[in-house]
Amino acid sequence: MAERSLLNQLIDALRCLPGVGPKSAQRMAFHLLERDREGGARLARVMADAMARVQSCRRCRTLSEHDLCGICANPKRDASLLCVVEQPSEIVAIDQATDFRGLYFVLGGRLSPLDGIGPDELGLDVLEGRLRDESIMEVILAISPTVEGSATAQFIADFAARHGVKITRIAHGVPLGGELEHVDGGTLALAFAGRRDL
Amino acid sequence: MAERSLLNQLIDALRCLPGVGPKSAQRMAFHLLERDREGGARLARVMADAMARVQSCRRCRTLSEHDLCGICANPKRDASLLCVVEQPSEIVAIDQATDFRGLYFVLGGRLSPLDGIGPDELGLDVLEGRLRDESIMEVILAISPTVEGSATAQFIADFAARHGVKITRIAHGVPLGGELEHVDGGTLALAFAGRRDL
Repeated sequence: MAERSLLNQLIDALRCLPGVGPKSAQRMAFHLLERDREGGARLARVMADAMARVQSCRRCRTLSEHDLCGICANPKRDASLLCVVEQPSEIVAIDQATDFRGLYFVLGGRLSPLDGIGPDELGLDVLEGRLRDESIMEVILAISPTVEGSATAQFIADFAARHGVKITRIAHGVPLGGELEHVDGGTLALAFAGRRDL
Repeated sequence: MAERSLLNQLIDALRCLPGVGPKSAQRMAFHLLERDREGGARLARVMADAMARVQSCRRCRTLSEHDLCGICANPKRDASLLCVVEQPSEIVAIDQATDFRGLYFVLGGRLSPLDGIGPDELGLDVLEGRLRDESIMEVILAISPTVEGSATAQFIADFAARHGVKITRIAHGVPLGGELEHVDGGTLALAFAGRRDL
């Protein structure tokens, strides 16, 4: 075949999806073409629209097609609580699993000067502006307990203190149902350091 | 959130892909939006194009955006050999794994009168027309050895005989590297029935 067929182009293009290798891409392409043209056409429309229009929320930096995301624009959310996360996907997880109904702020990573990721890349100037201008009472840090994560948390704690805002960090320890013998040493050490009175 | 965000619409739409549940759909959406907008935009374009333009090859019924697919239109293929398969994906598998360089015919299923799948649904009239009008010497049946598959094979063998065309069926038996104790009984029975002189 001299020219690439549309089918082969579709199989190739599907491989940009994470976790999709040549076999799954082929299965997906045949499935859409043989059994779900309508679903495929809708997916193509929504995907083109999302790639073109989704940007960052001006206030919390999560992904949104609006200037302000649905959470930031919702007057029912508690504007005195601000949860700082690394990635937009973590907002979905926290909103689904917890009863937290405050606002969020997305860093998009952790401080890592060697990789050129400083406070500006994480929008920490925007965050500090919010602590100064909004009536935030408590900042809850939901940041991974890695070296860079802890440095980032400390950096935020420092300027939160300057603005007189209470700062907390979510608990790290042995997960629910976790067997002690299967939990990694770092987590176990964190769990011991963070022990509480019963 | 009153209205569905584009992000949520994208996550929902991705679930039309086979094997993609809510978690993978979310991971795919975030991956495209945060790390591969260009890949996502290209995928959306190719998918829309494929859903709208891919149809069936007039001659072999495989998926193609042209009236004649790449294989049927290729003058280097051996037009005296015709391999009959059930699904378009099997053409890809056979072309990659074997040195078969003849033409194909796609049934799109197997005879199943109870489900309303008769000779016309499988394009057997088109196939018989090809046996009559083209200079085909051998028809190779690559059809699953199920009850319906065997009935379909027998039906094709009958009219191939009327047109004086040689008809063969690919061998079914124990797969390469297959441990006898792990092979199912039906396959083992086929392998015994199809034994050959050494």
